[in-house]
Order: sequence, then structure tokens, then C-alpha cells
Amino acid sequence: MLSEQQLIELISGVARSGDPVATGIGDDAAVLDDGTVLSCDMLVEGVDFERARSTPWQIGARAAAVNLSDLAAMAARPVCLLAAFGIPAGFEEVAELAAGIASHGVPLAGGDLSRAGELTVTITAVGRAERPVLRSGGRPGDLLAVTGTLGGQAASGYTAEIVPRLQEGIQLAGLASAMIDLSDGIATDAARLAHASGCGGRVLLGRLPLAEGATVEMAASGGEDYELLAAIPPGRALPPWLTVVGELAEGDRMVMVDADGHPRDMAGWDHFT
Amino acid sequence: MLSEQQLIELISGVARSGDPVATGIGDDAAVLDDGTVLSCDMLVEGVDFERARSTPWQIGARAAAVNLSDLAAMAARPVCLLAAFGIPAGFEEVAELAAGIASHGVPLAGGDLSRAGELTVTITAVGRAERPVLRSGGRPGDLLAVTGTLGGQAASGYTAEIVPRLQEGIQLAGLASAMIDLSDGIATDAARLAHASGCGGRVLLGRLPLAEGATVEMAASGGEDYELLAAIPPGRALPPWLTVVGELAEGDRMVMVDADGHPRDMAGWDHFT
Repeated sequence: MLSEQQLIELISGVARSGDPVATGIGDDAAVLDDGTVLSCDMLVEGVDFERARSTPWQIGARAAAVNLSDLAAMAARPVCLLAAFGIPAGFEEVAELAAGIASHGVPLAGGDLSRAGELTVTITAVGRAERPVLRSGGRPGDLLAVTGTLGGQAASGYTAEIVPRLQEGIQLAGLASAMIDLSDGIATDAARLAHASGCGGRVLLGRLPLAEGATVEMAASGGEDYELLAAIPPGRALPPWLTVVGELAEGDRMVMVDADGHPRDMAGWDHFT
Repeated sequence: MLSEQQLIELISGVARSGDPVATGIGDDAAVLDDGTVLSCDMLVEGVDFERARSTPWQIGARAAAVNLSDLAAMAARPVCLLAAFGIPAGFEEVAELAAGIASHGVPLAGGDLSRAGELTVTITAVGRAERPVLRSGGRPGDLLAVTGTLGGQAASGYTAEIVPRLQEGIQLAGLASAMIDLSDGIATDAARLAHASGCGGRVLLGRLPLAEGATVEMAASGGEDYELLAAIPPGRALPPWLTVVGELAEGDRMVMVDADGHPRDMAGWDHFT
């Protein structure tokens, strides 16, 4: 079986950037030349959720949230959502799914339904950004800062409600040099941001703002918190809702540093392994 | 199990039109207030295709085509595609799928991959239309005309290549009062257009342009031809690539009329039954 990274590389072979697609695969979302921002994420039963553990409303709310979080990470404001549902035999709660999707206040503008062997929800989020913030704009010396607290999803058994950081993302448009949402954990996502920016860097694990009940490990690699990680050039005034957790640096390694100053090997998770 | 129509009605309960979504669920695609047109269709293994009968390239090409056809039916020009893949264990031909998606010359701007029990391909097509043509603009007396020939997919066992009628759709922007693409067969889709337009009407089965090897039944209700059906106000000069097959009329019934002048009951197919 191919890894998620390998699959993305395969697709990138035919995906392309260039007019009218200003930024293509590899960022949180695609950006068109008119500032339209597009994100597409798929949730699959048994992989991303279990029907025994989540209500249809929660599944829908979550599917929308992870896409809206991608818009937030580009500093885009949401315009509308599209939803495609794969519906297994006997599942009749599509209205509850749709209500969950619509629960973030972003209109559901269209979609598709198909019979399927397992429940799947694929959302496309459409947004607009005056000044989209990419993953690739970070520079050595930029501070790394996060919104909210980390590890809450892992501590809750991945059942906590996801609140996409849309307002914070828009407010970071004029401040951040690069941004990513924390889907897989900062240990993985900080490395993604640094790699896209052609940098290395470090995250101080002792600085991570821990959610209630969360361990440092949960905060660093539990994943699914959907907070924003922003790179911010030094010397700028930071809003009080950001916590500085590290910095970008020359090089190509993003290191997690523990309280004793030792590097720690903490990978996030790959959806395919 | 709910019918496709019932599911669409359930979703419509939370979907909404209004700024910035000018036209929502119920048309071939959603239209935003800036002329952005969005279509989203999902293809599922065992429902919409069989891996034993289609190559990954063909599956990808088809998934893109049905979405681009929705843009064509709105008189929109395509801007880009997004793709979400559900990938079952052992399937390693994602690059071929993606190449098929890209085969129509529209850039693949982003997407998502997830492990899944069955192969699914969900495409979101993004387009722009100066003058989008809706299903709902038809009036009694408008001619009904189709592009190309009908029944070819049914005659081929649903393996023929789908060529979305993008150029024709754009050329019909200034001419058609209403438009729909023929996904389920004209017996079903003409009724959809008429219903959306608040009309009835008739289609003369003897006028249907038959594809090679196709019967009238295949042309009327075989489905999957993805030709365009346009309503055109009377008295306008028609391009030579259109075939007039009927007209809209007062009332609420769309009737298929055979060569002897008798109404025929020919429903298209429902993806859920």
C-alpha cells in the first residue's frame, strides 16, 4: 500500500499550478488567481469516524469543520460548502448529516448522493482571501505560534467538537508569513510548514499550551486539534490568543525539543498507515 | 432505503440560496454571486463503474466528464477541478486515475485521499459563467433541442467515452432560456427541466437523434449520454449542431410521444433503486 505522501506525489505529477490556479496541491487549499480558495477533504467510516461513536450530526459537523479549518489556514473567509455523500444501505439520517454540515453557519450550496458500501462524507469548502497565507512563506527567524490549546482531541478520544479558527485565520492575514492547520499534530505539521518554507526550526515542547487532560505527547502528535500554526516575522506585536512555541531556522530539520533541551523523535500519524 | 429524490429533498431543508449563493441545490451546479459555478459528483465502485470493466484512467476521465458536463449545462467555462479519492487496499493506480481526470485539459488544483473499503472518486468542478443558464428559465412555447446523438452509452454498455459539451454550452449562453445535461435520459431530464421551469411539454420520440446501434428506448431512458438539452425561445436561429426534439407547454406534465402520436411512459433511472 502506498503512503499518503506517495499518493500525493503521484497526483502532483498531473496537478499543476499556473493561471488560473495560483497555488495548487501541497498547501491546505488551492488558491485561484481571483482569490477564490478551495479545500476538499473526505471522511470515511472506519477511518475518520465510527458510526457507533458519533452521531450523524457530529460526523457532518466534523466533515465541515476540517474543511473550514483549511480555509482558516489560508486566511480565507468561507463562502459556501458542497457535500458528496456515500450512503450505505439502511442509513437514513442524511438530514442530520446535512444539519451538522450546516452547523457552522456556512451555506451548503449543493452536492451529490450515491449509494455506497460505507458512509463517506466529502466536503468542498469555497472561500475568498484578499491576502492568502501559504505554507511556504516562512523565513528563518520567524516565530512559530499556535492558537488555542493542543491535545484536546487525543485526550477526549477524538470526540471533542472541532471549532475551525476562521476569525483568527483572517486576523493573521496581515501578520503571518506562513500558516497551516494542525490536523496531524504539531510534530508533523510544523515540519510540513518548515519544509514548504525551505527552513528547519524547533518547537519547544514545554511551551505547548496543553488542553485539559492532555499530555505533551498528545499535544505534539495526537492530532486533530485543528488549531492554527503561524510563522510570524520577529518584532511584530502578537495578539493575546497566540502562544509562541518555537521558531523557524536555517536548515531542513524541524526538531521537537523537550524541557531538558534534548531533541525528541515524535512523528504525527499518516492516514494510510 | 430512501429514493434519490427524497434524499435531495432532505438536504434541501438545510441547503439555502441567497447571497452569496445565487442558485443552490436542484440545478446542475451552484452559482455564486460573482459568477463562480460549482458542481460536485461522486462515482462509486459497483454503482457507477466496475473496476473489472473500466481502467483507472477511464474511471478518472468519466468522473471529471460528468462534472464538466454539469458546468456545460450552466454555460460555464471550467476553471479547475478538485478530486477526493477513496482508495481500497491493494489499489495502486492513483496516478492513472488522476491522469484520466486531467485528460480533459482542465487543471487538477487539489484534492484529498483516504483509505476506503471501495474505490470512490468525488470531483468538484469549478467554473465561471457570465450568463449562467439555469434549469428554471424555460417558458411555454420554447423549443427543446439536444446536442449530439442519444442512446450511445446504453448501446455501448456504458463504456463509451464521455465528451462534456463545454463549447456548445458556452455558445448556448445567449440563446437558451434553460438547460440541463442528459445524465439519466431525456425522459427523466426533460421532465426535470420542465418542472424547474414551471411548465409541461412534449418530446417527440421519432425526432430523437439516435446514436449508432441505439434504440429509441436507449435514447430516451438509457441515460449517461451527457448531451445538453436546451429550451430555446421560438423564432431564434439555431446552430446546426442542435436537433429540435420537442417543446415546452403550459401544464405540469412532460410527455414522451411516439411516432403514432401516443404518449409513452418511459422513466429514466434512479441511482438509488
